Amino acid sequence: MSAHPRLSLNQATIKYAPFHEALRLTVAGGYESIGLWREPVAAVGLDEAARRLADSGLRVSSLCRGGFFTLPEGAERRAAIDENRRAIDETAALAAAGAPGSAAVLVLVAGGIPAGSTDLAGARARVADALAELAPDAASAGVTLAIEPLHPMYASDRAVVSTLEQALDLAEPFDAAAVGVVVDTFHIWWDPEAFAQIARAGASGRIASYQVCDWATPLPADVLLARHYPGDGVIDFAAFTEAVEAAGYTGDIEVEIFNQGIWDAPWPEVVERTAASFDRVVAPHLAASVTA
Amino acid sequence: MSAHPRLSLNQATIKYAPFHEALRLTVAGGYESIGLWREPVAAVGLDEAARRLADSGLRVSSLCRGGFFTLPEGAERRAAIDENRRAIDETAALAAAGAPGSAAVLVLVAGGIPAGSTDLAGARARVADALAELAPDAASAGVTLAIEPLHPMYASDRAVVSTLEQALDLAEPFDAAAVGVVVDTFHIWWDPEAFAQIARAGASGRIASYQVCDWATPLPADVLLARHYPGDGVIDFAAFTEAVEAAGYTGDIEVEIFNQGIWDAPWPEVVERTAASFDRVVAPHLAASVTA
Repeated sequence: MSAHPRLSLNQATIKYAPFHEALRLTVAGGYESIGLWREPVAAVGLDEAARRLADSGLRVSSLCRGGFFTLPEGAERRAAIDENRRAIDETAALAAAGAPGSAAVLVLVAGGIPAGSTDLAGARARVADALAELAPDAASAGVTLAIEPLHPMYASDRAVVSTLEQALDLAEPFDAAAVGVVVDTFHIWWDPEAFAQIARAGASGRIASYQVCDWATPLPADVLLARHYPGDGVIDFAAFTEAVEAAGYTGDIEVEIFNQGIWDAPWPEVVERTAASFDRVVAPHLAASVTA
Repeated sequence: MSAHPRLSLNQATIKYAPFHEALRLTVAGGYESIGLWREPVAAVGLDEAARRLADSGLRVSSLCRGGFFTLPEGAERRAAIDENRRAIDETAALAAAGAPGSAAVLVLVAGGIPAGSTDLAGARARVADALAELAPDAASAGVTLAIEPLHPMYASDRAVVSTLEQALDLAEPFDAAAVGVVVDTFHIWWDPEAFAQIARAGASGRIASYQVCDWATPLPADVLLARHYPGDGVIDFAAFTEAVEAAGYTGDIEVEIFNQGIWDAPWPEVVERTAASFDRVVAPHLAASVTA
């Protein structure tokens, strides 16, 4: 089997596959790159995960995820900041173990409004504070913190960063090598400002990751699991992919799908369908040049 | 019973109450104003509805709803435009029948992306085209078309207008008396640009309606029914109400809640709880001056 040379399988797409199996399936599917998650890495241990990744010959395109630092000052906030420092170190270790062209990118999901609060503005301000604390650590580890704006339907309980514009406003006080953004079609497809902000992100070298999956309705009962294969919904992947290309992004492109039906399907089938959907609706809009 | 003099009960909050009963409950609850929907008005007939409204002594704060004009040119689009012309006439007739201070405001929900299409930009452009067709009719009828940006989770299947900024961009080619916007906390609470855009809307006299209800998670299986009494969720009603006041809006304020549990509760209880929640979290942030 083969897959586009810039396609990366985010391992959440085959969520129930153990770490070793995810690597094996990704290689068997002809992919050159994988996006990793902290929990399955922790399940085998960082050293073992790094060794297996090196053996696989795959690039790593990102590590999911840091963030969740919207709490006010106190022990829980300190624990969250410390956890992010560990995630930065893990990102550096995994990128070093991955094949050449690996990206030391830690995806950040900001976190929601603390329970019982209506202070969205305060929660957002604390995201900026957390970035100011963590950016020096990221810079010294050679890691890029990638702020991911999440769809506004997650703004209360998961991520108070809701638009690419807001993510860029948060990133710009810092060096672009230390703090960038994630462009994820699922989260920003609806935004009238999306294309202008993709161009802005490109101009300042802030696109740390490009992730693709589709939006379709009706939404499932759990809206976290509303993602679909590219091409199975309403998103214009031609427009988004051409915009990200025009913005100068040349890295791996992750397909990251949270969908119970896809999680329950046989993993090799999911790996193959992911590559096929990418070939059909994303790849035709990429320039010939590739990362590897 | 009494209710704040600027509070209007959107009749969708007691969705299953027949038209006459909705008027009676609103009066009995001490309200001075009601927001009407076309379907229950049609169920009794426009003339009868206008007569009953006049007898009730209530103001009408808006009529829901026109719009749904994102289809490409053809018979279905023509039917939608014609339907909007009828809705404009109904808005004028009901506002004339309501007590002094009634608002001839037709709320517009744009409509979604046509089935099978990924052309969000095209659907949005057709909203602008429809406004250009309808604005002269609205102006000559003395009606304000109020573009309602809906939460981005509805962008694919219900409303391609997703932000207040976008609604204002659509409205501004037209006279403010003919085309304005709805500020609905449920739809825009997450938007980092919301307060700047409320100020912009006020400066150009475009706030045609202010609607309040709350956002809470987890979302229900049907995300259309995710609305709550003000104060039962995460929205900062102090900030929004003060912003709308500062923007110069002096009209009625509707509580519009789609929530199966609230729809299933006894109507007098819902009417009373609506007024109590408004008194608790919205009214303290209103200036002393009132509409009537």
